[in-house]
Amino acid sequence: MSVLIVGSTALDSIKTPTAENPRLLGGSASHAAVAASFFAPVKLIGVVGEDFPKKYLQLYRKHGINLDGLQTQPGKTFHWSGEYEVNMNNRRTLLTELGVFEKFTPHLPAAHKSTPYVLLANIAPALQHHVLDQMQRPKFVVADTMDLWLNIALDDLLKLIKRLDGFVLNDSEAHQLTKEDNVFAALKKIHKLGPRYVIIKKGSHGSILSGPKGFFICPAYPLHKVVDPTGAGDSFVGGMMGYLATARGSLDANIRRAMIHGSVVASFCCEGFGLNRTTKITRANIAKRVKELEGLTRF
Amino acid sequence: MSVLIVGSTALDSIKTPTAENPRLLGGSASHAAVAASFFAPVKLIGVVGEDFPKKYLQLYRKHGINLDGLQTQPGKTFHWSGEYEVNMNNRRTLLTELGVFEKFTPHLPAAHKSTPYVLLANIAPALQHHVLDQMQRPKFVVADTMDLWLNIALDDLLKLIKRLDGFVLNDSEAHQLTKEDNVFAALKKIHKLGPRYVIIKKGSHGSILSGPKGFFICPAYPLHKVVDPTGAGDSFVGGMMGYLATARGSLDANIRRAMIHGSVVASFCCEGFGLNRTTKITRANIAKRVKELEGLTRF
Repeated sequence: MSVLIVGSTALDSIKTPTAENPRLLGGSASHAAVAASFFAPVKLIGVVGEDFPKKYLQLYRKHGINLDGLQTQPGKTFHWSGEYEVNMNNRRTLLTELGVFEKFTPHLPAAHKSTPYVLLANIAPALQHHVLDQMQRPKFVVADTMDLWLNIALDDLLKLIKRLDGFVLNDSEAHQLTKEDNVFAALKKIHKLGPRYVIIKKGSHGSILSGPKGFFICPAYPLHKVVDPTGAGDSFVGGMMGYLATARGSLDANIRRAMIHGSVVASFCCEGFGLNRTTKITRANIAKRVKELEGLTRF
Repeated sequence: MSVLIVGSTALDSIKTPTAENPRLLGGSASHAAVAASFFAPVKLIGVVGEDFPKKYLQLYRKHGINLDGLQTQPGKTFHWSGEYEVNMNNRRTLLTELGVFEKFTPHLPAAHKSTPYVLLANIAPALQHHVLDQMQRPKFVVADTMDLWLNIALDDLLKLIKRLDGFVLNDSEAHQLTKEDNVFAALKKIHKLGPRYVIIKKGSHGSILSGPKGFFICPAYPLHKVVDPTGAGDSFVGGMMGYLATARGSLDANIRRAMIHGSVVASFCCEGFGLNRTTKITRANIAKRVKELEGLTRF
């Protein structure tokens, strides 16, 4: 089965203490779509401007990503610029140019509306609602978010969370949403907002699932060096949804391995700027790290 | 086989946002010894003053802890007082009264010198050296430390690390020691200082082992509420050493499960003030959480 992914499709200019990379392919939907594409057919929903490089369209296509839902509008592509500190854990936004995203209204091609797996990657909750409104009885709907929407669109977000099967957020966002410092206490509160599955991402510390079958403690793959963590969270949830869409058996039987696969794709994402590394890996590279993670956690 | 444990034997006055508990039984050696006692015979090396409550001696004895190496000296027992913030992650020391610890010289009873497992729990590196000097060909020597010794006794500590089989420290200390933000890069550098086994503790995020057989990602047991984390790290390493001392088979075959058992004892430690909860559990309570952790990490 296939995955429909909506989110930002952007150009990212990323500065780290050692390098500067202007106008890389970025955005939550780009990272999530490429990650999911290793496992399942992906339909991308987004918008780019007339300045969007052809080579990036080719990159999507190389990954078999269906672009029927990717609009090209007059104007500039969404451009984000950020800078990481030495430890790569803290980043600050230098610039956000919304461009064509400012007036984006996602329209789903008819053939997309019955896609069974839906990932509402990080984007304004109003747009996530708008996509979900157009879907016909999806099988499994997951959304990701960011602190910005907790700050400026909390009502929209809370209404969205009610409509989800799964909600993914990071630990600081979980704290902001629930006022709970304890991850497990936060998970409990987030369930009460609606979703049966809640996943809290903890960066290099891995992630925690809370679902109908209880908790799962998902490790991060050990990396000796992080080149650029931008998009790692999107890669995680994208990989997870791609894996789920094609795995046989029940959701509960597959979700743990789906998270592990997402975690591994996220590890590759961190090893290069933007999508540089992720777009060069194979399913075999992923399988090897999944196997390693099995060895690293068994006792 | 048995474990010899040296470290601080103290009275802890612990303040949290919701409670205040004066003069609890505390200190690195107390926590480690009680944790180890669930698995192996323990010989405690330490010093207390004339004010040390009899009930605490009885508590040690209840756990079968050999007190032949526990000195009682004229003066006051080491007293530490600290306060935790709302999130229980940050604490500040309010008071440190060294008392009889100021002039402590650990003397090992003859029968203690051939103990095969040695845990040099957190205490001044000079005292850790002094104990190790008296040991006769121990089988496995592990030390823990704290930021204080990195600040004021780094030379002593570096010399000690050279003599160890295993070294345990937390992530901020690993950063301080190696200047590496990345845990796996830090582990590599710490091996170069001597020990074959290095464990970095990450609090509620679990711990990471690096040893001859590679890495092990050890989870923390999920707790919905942390009452008092004081002594959790000591409980972890104590439980681990106790488990190792009585497990059959090679060290490499046992160390992962040893860490898991340590992690579980640490989880109980966090559920009560001081040793209040740890001293009330049984081996069966520990086994149940170990089993649960197996379920929570399998994929």
